[in-house]
Amino acid sequence: MSKGRILTGDRPTGALHLGNYVGTLANRVKLQDEYEVFLLVADYHALTRHAEKDHVIATRAFTRDLVMDYLAVGIDPNKVTIYRQSDVPSVCELHLLFSMLATVPRLERVPTLKEVMDAEHIEQPSYGLLGYPVLQAADILHVRANLVPVGKDQASHLELTREIARRFNFLYGDVFPEPDTLIGQVPTLVGTDGQGKMSKSLGNAIMLSDDSATVKHKVRDMYTDPKRVRADIPGTVEGNPVFDYHDAFNPNRVEVEELKTRYRAGKVGDVEVKNKLTAALENFLAPIRERRARYTANPKIVDEILAAGAAKVRPISEETVRMARDAMGLK
Amino acid sequence: MSKGRILTGDRPTGALHLGNYVGTLANRVKLQDEYEVFLLVADYHALTRHAEKDHVIATRAFTRDLVMDYLAVGIDPNKVTIYRQSDVPSVCELHLLFSMLATVPRLERVPTLKEVMDAEHIEQPSYGLLGYPVLQAADILHVRANLVPVGKDQASHLELTREIARRFNFLYGDVFPEPDTLIGQVPTLVGTDGQGKMSKSLGNAIMLSDDSATVKHKVRDMYTDPKRVRADIPGTVEGNPVFDYHDAFNPNRVEVEELKTRYRAGKVGDVEVKNKLTAALENFLAPIRERRARYTANPKIVDEILAAGAAKVRPISEETVRMARDAMGLK
Repeated sequence: MSKGRILTGDRPTGALHLGNYVGTLANRVKLQDEYEVFLLVADYHALTRHAEKDHVIATRAFTRDLVMDYLAVGIDPNKVTIYRQSDVPSVCELHLLFSMLATVPRLERVPTLKEVMDAEHIEQPSYGLLGYPVLQAADILHVRANLVPVGKDQASHLELTREIARRFNFLYGDVFPEPDTLIGQVPTLVGTDGQGKMSKSLGNAIMLSDDSATVKHKVRDMYTDPKRVRADIPGTVEGNPVFDYHDAFNPNRVEVEELKTRYRAGKVGDVEVKNKLTAALENFLAPIRERRARYTANPKIVDEILAAGAAKVRPISEETVRMARDAMGLK
Repeated sequence: MSKGRILTGDRPTGALHLGNYVGTLANRVKLQDEYEVFLLVADYHALTRHAEKDHVIATRAFTRDLVMDYLAVGIDPNKVTIYRQSDVPSVCELHLLFSMLATVPRLERVPTLKEVMDAEHIEQPSYGLLGYPVLQAADILHVRANLVPVGKDQASHLELTREIARRFNFLYGDVFPEPDTLIGQVPTLVGTDGQGKMSKSLGNAIMLSDDSATVKHKVRDMYTDPKRVRADIPGTVEGNPVFDYHDAFNPNRVEVEELKTRYRAGKVGDVEVKNKLTAALENFLAPIRERRARYTANPKIVDEILAAGAAKVRPISEETVRMARDAMGLK
């Protein structure tokens, strides 16, 4: 196998937005031609925070939204193996074996634990939440991925995956690759309010599934330089979300540079800058909408893709568990 | 189903002794005629403390010793389903689902955690050791047992199993029984040194697999009343292990009472008391040795019994996981 094997994925928390595109999706679309990519819908991970039934039900619906967004942005299910965590039971077996190889204090030191608890107002973590990175290690290693594209916030998890792989190989013999980080930096996109990272829950997101009217409306209401109360006042481009979006989504570099020059000189109105951004976003979203329409015409497509993905992953995962058990002497 | 369903079992830590017989085995032999009994060899649990490869290998060998002891004392594999934890992968799936339903502080408060850490000199518990009672809940509930014979030290684990069953049923609908404790008190047997509970690791145990010469030797060296330096000094029966063993294993109550009377009066030598104990133990061990010889004549018997047990448990366990997933909305 000359191509590396990548494991990447998301918790299903709903439809994706432009920030997700800039952060991970664009990269995945590129990676699918160069690597063997496994794309995990981590529905078990979604339950580590809140396990109530309505949350489980929502997770099922979010899974559909997520897969549809994958397809819409151009992730090709013939190239990428898209599968759902809960469809591959053998990952649970590896998770249990790995649970002997990480200590509680080590897991308590993983910085995301406290971040998630703070963000989600969780006073007492579930056992599963503490073990989130152990399950993630099982996700990565049951397909024997050697590359994982991670952002800063996930780097500590990948480090634990590497520790578990190392510890397993040391105790029982070489079974697992120590996966490498593919990309250290995941680009982020500011929200339409200019206040922080784009996030659905903060209400500052443009969704990949937004229609033209919604996009137009959201761009019109976008935060810009607040000191610029009239079009003839020189404005600031840096940190201005409207220009960040132009940089990210407007391929007409000449137009963007010209707008920036005029903006700095107080020679362009916000309306023009925003209309041109809307036009650029419409151009960007057009092929995404086209693919989405094609896929939604076949309402069973998501189920079929997930079933095919699971059917492909299961034998790989089961073989991995067999290898692990053999190495341990559990057979 | 009129008979209740029982789940009971042991970590495979080696051959069993008279103390194990008095504590649990005698009871299991009785229960097998009244209940549907599942007898678990908890080899995953054995790895929560020490996961090194030689320990895994030892656990495999101990599993054989353990099953052979079960058979030797009269547990009938045609009545009792004897199976190995690691042979039923779906228990790992239930374990993962349950890991969302117990909090870390709750697990940290389980008293056995600290006891095990102290006893085994473990400074940092593995994630799996903290989750020991979660896996135990999965063991009990994946066969939907409604009765669990437990000693005091395991009562806190069963309480957690009941909490998890309750929490699951509350969140998703009735799937699991809340298992009841069958017997609150597990009788204990003092060691041959009279210093504490019989324990293989303390070297104060008479093994069920000891031969006649070894039993005779161990009884001869047994601790008795230390103030009784001559046979004509009145002795104390209470807390005297030789008489405890007579009470437990000598069915000739007249002989035992007569020996006690003479002992208290300083009218019997230790040698006579011990010889009569040896004789009683030989009578007790004779049928055990006979069954053992019959089973060891067929060296594949343990593998066959474990395979048959796993084959019986797997569909039950898989059905339970299906029921749990359906209730959760994971299908």
